[in-house]
Amino acid sequence: MRYYSYEEFIRDLKTLTKKIDFKFDAIVAISRGGLTIAHFLGEYYNIRSVYAISAIGYEDQKKLPCVTIGNIPDLSCHERILIVDEIVDSGETLERVIAQVKEKFPHLICKSAVLFYKSSAKFQPDFFVQYADEWIDFFWTRDLHDTYDR
Amino acid sequence: MRYYSYEEFIRDLKTLTKKIDFKFDAIVAISRGGLTIAHFLGEYYNIRSVYAISAIGYEDQKKLPCVTIGNIPDLSCHERILIVDEIVDSGETLERVIAQVKEKFPHLICKSAVLFYKSSAKFQPDFFVQYADEWIDFFWTRDLHDTYDR
Repeated sequence: MRYYSYEEFIRDLKTLTKKIDFKFDAIVAISRGGLTIAHFLGEYYNIRSVYAISAIGYEDQKKLPCVTIGNIPDLSCHERILIVDEIVDSGETLERVIAQVKEKFPHLICKSAVLFYKSSAKFQPDFFVQYADEWIDFFWTRDLHDTYDR
Repeated sequence: MRYYSYEEFIRDLKTLTKKIDFKFDAIVAISRGGLTIAHFLGEYYNIRSVYAISAIGYEDQKKLPCVTIGNIPDLSCHERILIVDEIVDSGETLERVIAQVKEKFPHLICKSAVLFYKSSAKFQPDFFVQYADEWIDFFWTRDLHDTYDR
């Protein structure tokens, strides 16, 4: 288990913005993991259309047998979207989210951006910053707990 | 203009969790401003059902004549929800979001939580941490820009 701090996040998100060579008019966060990233990128690119899609594929650290996806936002007025999550692990979540978004909105051009990517995943994101080989304890999971003092 | 750091956010969000004396089974972020808060609270309370509602009431620092609300998630399987945003300014956004959620899902019990509240607002959130009297430059707006060094 590796603790991933806010300072590392800012450094890596800056790296991610340098890698994203794609113009987009909306950001879709995979909830919960992509919410903070989507918020920061929306501010950075001055994009107000920041949405969330529900995808539940884990219970604590245990992978569930299937990924449930829901609440796909209305993206009909957009053309190019960036789908963001914190990590591509098995790749199943991102693959299914993109498939369902494209099924509902076939006109969309979708690219994906994440912070961490496991090379064993069956689906590769378009943009990522680091390879992950252990469970990552993100600051958004850790920092509100009283045991953690900055 | 006042810079609001990640460290202040963690301190205030801890205070907010101590004030929230309400059990809820879903969190709804007002996008974009409430996204990071919703992510952290979802992790803290171990609530996976974290959704986003689109509400656009500002262009940069200028208030628009009306607030546009969209992409209300399917909340039919929930009973008690917490709606979160970063600030209640005029109060119009939060008031309209709650009204539209209740119109669509009359069975829901809704409470609201924010970090900042302007006492001049026409709508008071159920839970808040600080009064705001100037424009706040949040870390999620500022920290990705290269001019800022931690």
